[in-house]
Amino acid sequence: MHTEYPLLTTDAWITYIHSLQDRICAALEQTDGKARFTEDKWERDGGGGGKTRVIAHGDVLEKGGVNTSVVYGKVSEAMRSQLKINGEKWFACGLSLVLHPLNPFVPTVHANWRYFELYDAQHKVIDRWFGGGADLTPYYLFEEDAKHFHTTLRNAIAPFGESLYPLYKKQCDEYFSNKHRGNEMRGIGGVFYDYLRPADEADADRLFAFQRANGDSFLAAYIPIAEKRKQTEWNEKNKYWQEIRRGRYTEFNLIHDKGTLFGLKTNGRTESILMSLPPTVRFDYNYQPEKGSEEEKLLAACLHPEEWA
Amino acid sequence: MHTEYPLLTTDAWITYIHSLQDRICAALEQTDGKARFTEDKWERDGGGGGKTRVIAHGDVLEKGGVNTSVVYGKVSEAMRSQLKINGEKWFACGLSLVLHPLNPFVPTVHANWRYFELYDAQHKVIDRWFGGGADLTPYYLFEEDAKHFHTTLRNAIAPFGESLYPLYKKQCDEYFSNKHRGNEMRGIGGVFYDYLRPADEADADRLFAFQRANGDSFLAAYIPIAEKRKQTEWNEKNKYWQEIRRGRYTEFNLIHDKGTLFGLKTNGRTESILMSLPPTVRFDYNYQPEKGSEEEKLLAACLHPEEWA
Repeated sequence: MHTEYPLLTTDAWITYIHSLQDRICAALEQTDGKARFTEDKWERDGGGGGKTRVIAHGDVLEKGGVNTSVVYGKVSEAMRSQLKINGEKWFACGLSLVLHPLNPFVPTVHANWRYFELYDAQHKVIDRWFGGGADLTPYYLFEEDAKHFHTTLRNAIAPFGESLYPLYKKQCDEYFSNKHRGNEMRGIGGVFYDYLRPADEADADRLFAFQRANGDSFLAAYIPIAEKRKQTEWNEKNKYWQEIRRGRYTEFNLIHDKGTLFGLKTNGRTESILMSLPPTVRFDYNYQPEKGSEEEKLLAACLHPEEWA
Repeated sequence: MHTEYPLLTTDAWITYIHSLQDRICAALEQTDGKARFTEDKWERDGGGGGKTRVIAHGDVLEKGGVNTSVVYGKVSEAMRSQLKINGEKWFACGLSLVLHPLNPFVPTVHANWRYFELYDAQHKVIDRWFGGGADLTPYYLFEEDAKHFHTTLRNAIAPFGESLYPLYKKQCDEYFSNKHRGNEMRGIGGVFYDYLRPADEADADRLFAFQRANGDSFLAAYIPIAEKRKQTEWNEKNKYWQEIRRGRYTEFNLIHDKGTLFGLKTNGRTESILMSLPPTVRFDYNYQPEKGSEEEKLLAACLHPEEWA
């Protein structure tokens, strides 16, 4: 399994990412039932471009984006100082998605899978790595949903080593954390990994298969939850709480998320990067959920990461 | 005028700031007509504390805060690296306010006046400075309001030097700018200054008087605008646009504002710092106002700073 085809090339990775984008968008449109993705193709000054696909005002998806980009160029000063990168040229290709459902009982989800290559002046590869993950941000905690999401990711990763899911789950809990709010997580996590560097060509193919296993597991991890909850009746109070929690999501993305900040500070495409922000958000002073409420139960799960799988 | 009493002492500055907080809150309650400020007193681990006064769900003010703090302590590693500070102990006292009106025709306003002292191990003052300013964020552009706000600030500052308003106005335009959106300003500016260091004691008293002139001008700069616009009828489309612009306000505060980020990353009181965020916010993908609309006219003023006074 670990060395199955396709072998890792940048072309094979690009083909995979674009195919995954198509599959995910098609499945999400089917779950939504009303809205359709629209595509903005963009080009990057300095090399490459992307396909930003957004959906809005759906029956299920209030706002979402499933974006791919294939970008490359010369290593800039910002990359040298902020990414600690020392080569001459670079290549990056990945898919990023964020879905903000209308219904507060359907969780928000984020996922990203990326591959990076670094070259010397002779275009020889001097470094390369994979990164990615998927994480769930519910507004109400259904333990069966949390278990389903985490178990699906764990099972997808298991063939590559039983120790990986616990490690990447822990990294996810630590990464998606609002440090300025006592390490309150933005949701209930998933998996997060970065700088997975192949030791050799066989290892590169194995890591490529690992990325595909992760990317391919996304629909199985998320769609059943969205389908199960999308018809749940909700009221103004549920919406209010969703918008308060979306405030925390906004805080994380704009204050702490390295990808967002690096993109914005290096002249990335702002609208594609900030596609991740929720459609409607509330910031109340010192908002506290009622004691013993379902809202407080969700907050407790964000403050104290649990083992779901 | 420049050397009038009171002379600068930390006590005199604290007394002034608390008195200004009382005056501003009283005037805002009168303009609102319904809501009242509530006060949260807090203490800071390591020294000092503050009085956070918030107002919400008013007839005029949907959300607002007028906060003071008097804080001091030992110089931390974060202060050394991020503020480039080299002393042993420090003192800071200031007032920060942000007002988010309900009516999209009433502008949001922000102001801050602060004083900082730095000491050596023997508690001798080795550095001290004032900083502050006020800036206006309208959702619809009324030129007479922009002129009134800027002219009031300019007139308050004029006795201290005719060259100061143009300089501090330019600094304000540059500071409150969303660099990730082509230097789009969050509003139409005002004045912004920092590191005003007294050359001697007479200069310290003069700068204290300069700060009072700024602080004392706030109500005259803002209240007449709020009074003039608070009865203007508005519709859902106006609210939508206000919430889109509040999204830009959120982006600026969380991505670029040095005070916000420094506070959050050095264990400041999160709820007092993030009081500045708007009550309800919208993030649409690639939102563009209609050509020739009032919304586009406001956006143009944010993209191309004008001379208002």
